[in-house]
Amino acid sequence: MSVVIDDILSTAQSNWTKEEGPYHHIVISSRIRLARNISKIPMPIFQNETEGQHVLDKVKKVAESKELRDDNALEFYRLKDINALDRRILLEKHLISPDHCQEDVRRGLLVNKDESISIMVNEEDHLRIQVLYPGLQLNKAWEKVDNIDDILENHLEYAYDAEKGFLTACPTNVGTGMRASVMIHLPALTMTKQAPRIFSALGQLGLAVRGLYGEGTEAIGNIYQISNQITLGQKETEIIQSLTAVTRQIIEKEEEIRRALVKEKKLQLQDRVGRAYGILQNAAIMDSKEALNLLSDFRLGLDLELIHTDLKGQQLTELMVMIQPGFLQKYKKKPMQSLDRDAARAELIKEKLKGGHSDVY
Amino acid sequence: MSVVIDDILSTAQSNWTKEEGPYHHIVISSRIRLARNISKIPMPIFQNETEGQHVLDKVKKVAESKELRDDNALEFYRLKDINALDRRILLEKHLISPDHCQEDVRRGLLVNKDESISIMVNEEDHLRIQVLYPGLQLNKAWEKVDNIDDILENHLEYAYDAEKGFLTACPTNVGTGMRASVMIHLPALTMTKQAPRIFSALGQLGLAVRGLYGEGTEAIGNIYQISNQITLGQKETEIIQSLTAVTRQIIEKEEEIRRALVKEKKLQLQDRVGRAYGILQNAAIMDSKEALNLLSDFRLGLDLELIHTDLKGQQLTELMVMIQPGFLQKYKKKPMQSLDRDAARAELIKEKLKGGHSDVY
Repeated sequence: MSVVIDDILSTAQSNWTKEEGPYHHIVISSRIRLARNISKIPMPIFQNETEGQHVLDKVKKVAESKELRDDNALEFYRLKDINALDRRILLEKHLISPDHCQEDVRRGLLVNKDESISIMVNEEDHLRIQVLYPGLQLNKAWEKVDNIDDILENHLEYAYDAEKGFLTACPTNVGTGMRASVMIHLPALTMTKQAPRIFSALGQLGLAVRGLYGEGTEAIGNIYQISNQITLGQKETEIIQSLTAVTRQIIEKEEEIRRALVKEKKLQLQDRVGRAYGILQNAAIMDSKEALNLLSDFRLGLDLELIHTDLKGQQLTELMVMIQPGFLQKYKKKPMQSLDRDAARAELIKEKLKGGHSDVY
Repeated sequence: MSVVIDDILSTAQSNWTKEEGPYHHIVISSRIRLARNISKIPMPIFQNETEGQHVLDKVKKVAESKELRDDNALEFYRLKDINALDRRILLEKHLISPDHCQEDVRRGLLVNKDESISIMVNEEDHLRIQVLYPGLQLNKAWEKVDNIDDILENHLEYAYDAEKGFLTACPTNVGTGMRASVMIHLPALTMTKQAPRIFSALGQLGLAVRGLYGEGTEAIGNIYQISNQITLGQKETEIIQSLTAVTRQIIEKEEEIRRALVKEKKLQLQDRVGRAYGILQNAAIMDSKEALNLLSDFRLGLDLELIHTDLKGQQLTELMVMIQPGFLQKYKKKPMQSLDRDAARAELIKEKLKGGHSDVY
């Protein structure tokens, strides 16, 4: 395989876990993805293998264009050439979906080195174009994904209906085919039980809230994904404008409560942050849920300067990715059962935190 | 006040928290106390103040004898001259009982500098003579308490009945008037839920098991007190022999289970010990029960060499004494409400552990 995917698979760093984006103390990442299909070829669910290969071939050809290969450094891969563990790592890095992780010869992926752009081929739709940036950068992500979309459209004829817009496998995507989302860390709103009230108002704005790992999942580690639900009757830029505005309001609310907590409950916060740090640094067995929850407390301590450390919030985001099962097996170079993984996870966290020379006050 | 009591009140160290006795990895201390009354003076419960003063005066006079003052370095105090906080500290050091801590002009105390010998005057009985040594040293404690008892008997006429033996306020003490006990740390037996089964057999041997703070209390910090129940029909040396033998058996059982745990559950033990250490070192609020339980895990880690540290088990015993409310208020030089105490306790533990340069493996 080529350098790009080897790099991706050998480190937990991605642009969104490495660089600090705007509002990085609260917003972990901004993502926009577009669902697109090629005209006159059955969508993946109705495809036979030949038709699937046809889509792969078409996209591979576009991938060789100057605009994608040279200007955007995208490389094309067939997922059948990537083993199951490595596919699992792509999933843990949010580069492919759980579905796309499954064995299927028709699946493809385009990705660039810093992992900010990825295109799943033959997932639910022929193309799922994703741009992922650190912090709150939905506008910038939109510009990039729109640019990639234009390039693809220059080479491929999209399935498009003058009235409905872009046609997609699932009706919930028809229209813009766009899903914009932010991954946001809200420990103070969660701790003070104000999150549900705030989130309940989002439905009326056409926005939905989910936990860290997609639909229906719990907000482990106090991390939420907020995304648009509506893809019909609103322009992309309007949706992005609205999601950005709502995110800013939530940031302000989270900041306000954090300030109030520091003022009124400093000792309790120090206790919580200190305990999280002490356990992360000294446990010998840790499951992924506990790790994410403790890392959330640790990150809050970092943001509120209750803990002095060389570690940056970005390293904690990286750790959030590294403690997933796929990465742990890569790190330990062997498949592992649950207890072994929990031990490897504790070991890895300890090692990472030791590098940081932290001091709790 | 004199040097002896000032020393006692200004440090948490006692002979039993400072020195290592035999089997110190499991047995914290050995104690023997004798209940004695002076003939022809009403026992404390039936005394008027004049009679109480009379007892105090008599004992004070004996305290000035060469044998007590010079040979055993005992000093006499009236508890009315010691303020409530300092009395509380004497209680936390196991030098006086909760009853003897109460306001009452008739109460007295003799104590030596290393706190191995203490005599409560006008507690439930006229005299409660106590000897307290670190580790398993019941025979040595018996020799000493017997010697002090002989000295007192040379100067005072004891209430004694040829058939019943020594007369005491409570019938459960009549006979030898002796209570021998060991304070024993049994984390492995507790963790594996084998403690109740072992303890249930002790009743038949005339022994009783209690928690750390006397009758009816829970075994916080996995610390138990085992003592004789029978004071009639058995010689002191027989009772001591039997309690020593049973303690040795319990030590062996505890050691056996510790070895098995290290062999079969090392990772889980490391996790438990590591978490305890991490929390002790980093929490900002800690109640006394949690502290004792975590110190128990830490001590187990120390004993099993799962943790490398300069700290000695004896320093943890000292810490067990220091984190009690009285000491904390002395340490902080002010009376404190519950949350303040919990914060001071966390701070004190952190400070003590930092002095130790520990490393968890």
